[in-house]
Amino acid sequence: MKLLILAKVPDDMKEVARKMAESIGMQAIFEEDGNDWSDVEALLSFIPKLRTMNSYISKLPKLKLIQTLSAGVDLLDFNQIPDNITVCSNAGAFALPVAEHAVSMAMALSKNLLSNHMKMKNGVFNQRSPSIKLEGKMAGVLGYGGIGREIGRLCRGIGMELQVISRKLVSENVSFSGNLDSLDRVLQSSDFVFISLPLNRYTKNLITSDKLKKMKKDAILVNVARAAIINEQDLYNHLRENPEFKAGIDVWWQEPITTGEYEMKYPFLDLPNVIGSPHNSGIVPDIDINAFMSALKNVELWMKTGKPHNVVRREDYT
Amino acid sequence: MKLLILAKVPDDMKEVARKMAESIGMQAIFEEDGNDWSDVEALLSFIPKLRTMNSYISKLPKLKLIQTLSAGVDLLDFNQIPDNITVCSNAGAFALPVAEHAVSMAMALSKNLLSNHMKMKNGVFNQRSPSIKLEGKMAGVLGYGGIGREIGRLCRGIGMELQVISRKLVSENVSFSGNLDSLDRVLQSSDFVFISLPLNRYTKNLITSDKLKKMKKDAILVNVARAAIINEQDLYNHLRENPEFKAGIDVWWQEPITTGEYEMKYPFLDLPNVIGSPHNSGIVPDIDINAFMSALKNVELWMKTGKPHNVVRREDYT
Repeated sequence: MKLLILAKVPDDMKEVARKMAESIGMQAIFEEDGNDWSDVEALLSFIPKLRTMNSYISKLPKLKLIQTLSAGVDLLDFNQIPDNITVCSNAGAFALPVAEHAVSMAMALSKNLLSNHMKMKNGVFNQRSPSIKLEGKMAGVLGYGGIGREIGRLCRGIGMELQVISRKLVSENVSFSGNLDSLDRVLQSSDFVFISLPLNRYTKNLITSDKLKKMKKDAILVNVARAAIINEQDLYNHLRENPEFKAGIDVWWQEPITTGEYEMKYPFLDLPNVIGSPHNSGIVPDIDINAFMSALKNVELWMKTGKPHNVVRREDYT
Repeated sequence: MKLLILAKVPDDMKEVARKMAESIGMQAIFEEDGNDWSDVEALLSFIPKLRTMNSYISKLPKLKLIQTLSAGVDLLDFNQIPDNITVCSNAGAFALPVAEHAVSMAMALSKNLLSNHMKMKNGVFNQRSPSIKLEGKMAGVLGYGGIGREIGRLCRGIGMELQVISRKLVSENVSFSGNLDSLDRVLQSSDFVFISLPLNRYTKNLITSDKLKKMKKDAILVNVARAAIINEQDLYNHLRENPEFKAGIDVWWQEPITTGEYEMKYPFLDLPNVIGSPHNSGIVPDIDINAFMSALKNVELWMKTGKPHNVVRREDYT
């Protein structure tokens, strides 16, 4: 069975990929190698190719499976993907480092590390500068998939309580679990709010001015999911008007990998209550090969059983 | 029994302090209130008064106990304190927030939060900017008292392994435990090194160029104890020559509270591999009252049993 790999892969990695695919009974081919695509039944795709997936589908008459290498599938245009093609995300593949990054941002904000560092650079040494104590605080985790569960584990390790927004009811070790209907309740009562939801029709523009105003005045909001879950202008205004409110932002409304450019409509990084990072939360050593293996294992599962993990619910996106 | 309180205390707090002292059968008096000191047997002192303790001792003929409000007692001149006076530190009173601050610094450095934020401000958005994965890393904790144990708890919660330098052998949940004779071994094999030692004759200038060179090239060093445990010039040079090596520095060689001024001999804060904070790791809500209560409880223990906690070993300091 032929597997088309739509990703920039260095030559030595190509060889590894071919061998790994072979070990599960597949023949891996790469876009730039000019192979025959008429009998390709599955493909692996990384983010940049998701935007132009439609142009590939028309050339792949036998395609049955799209397996993304990214955890998010929000760049796919599901209206253009025939129903007989199964789409699987790589949810969970980046969960551990992304969660570590999210909690690191929250902790850095709670201790004012960036703003105090800058003040010290300017000669201000305020030993009485207060911080937030983490132990005993309430963490609200919006989206309790791979990333959310890892965030929960880290928050518990710090001694925080946990409440989660999840499709499925979560019973282990949480103070509260509810679906998006309970969002307000979780926003109101959390000291830390982590966004680890997929971007889909239910979550796009979920966090607006109205929701931000429901949160505690000195809450810390961290987004490591997708920017468009939060309204850009509303967040900027809220941060400017509420200097005690803080945000850790790893995902942006205009990123080079998605929109081709890096541009901010609002000067978030000039605010002292923001820490920004360049959507690099998942980039730790070996993550590429691990994510590739995770995706390939799912292709194997699909091939052997017809029941892969992380099958995307199209109705969430259309 | 009279207890002299050498600390700036607001009037409403004075009333609380008097009542708390009364509840353990003591009469609390304050320096500025002009009381008779001839029968004072115990005193509580915060950092600024430790430097001038000698001038008080000569006026307190009945003094038997000095209980500090700070965790460190390094500012006392033990050569000038008569042997019949017991000195107790407030070790542990600030342990939780200080440990949270230390681990927050380590995590922020591991994810390059400050340096990437500054790069983004300058228009550089590098989504492939790599980070360190925390899970599975080795944390070396130098000094396993109140702060060190809390650091250990947090590191375990992240999924790190732990090795500790401690006077007493530590058996619970550590990969290795040894005293200062094992320092090199711990420095060599740790990805993260936390300094939570008291400053005394054994630890002053403990970390020199020689020790830094034994550490991993990309290790992260965090000091929340006392600056003088590390050689200032050696650390600066090591950081400049090893850009992959990172340091979180909360305690400084010249601080307003100890030397009256804030001055750096070397421009640590211009280095991209440093995060600095103004020795504020312990400052969380209610910490003053909690530290005061912790110190007062120890005075009570001393009064009732003659066996208080945290009795300072003078021989460590002289």
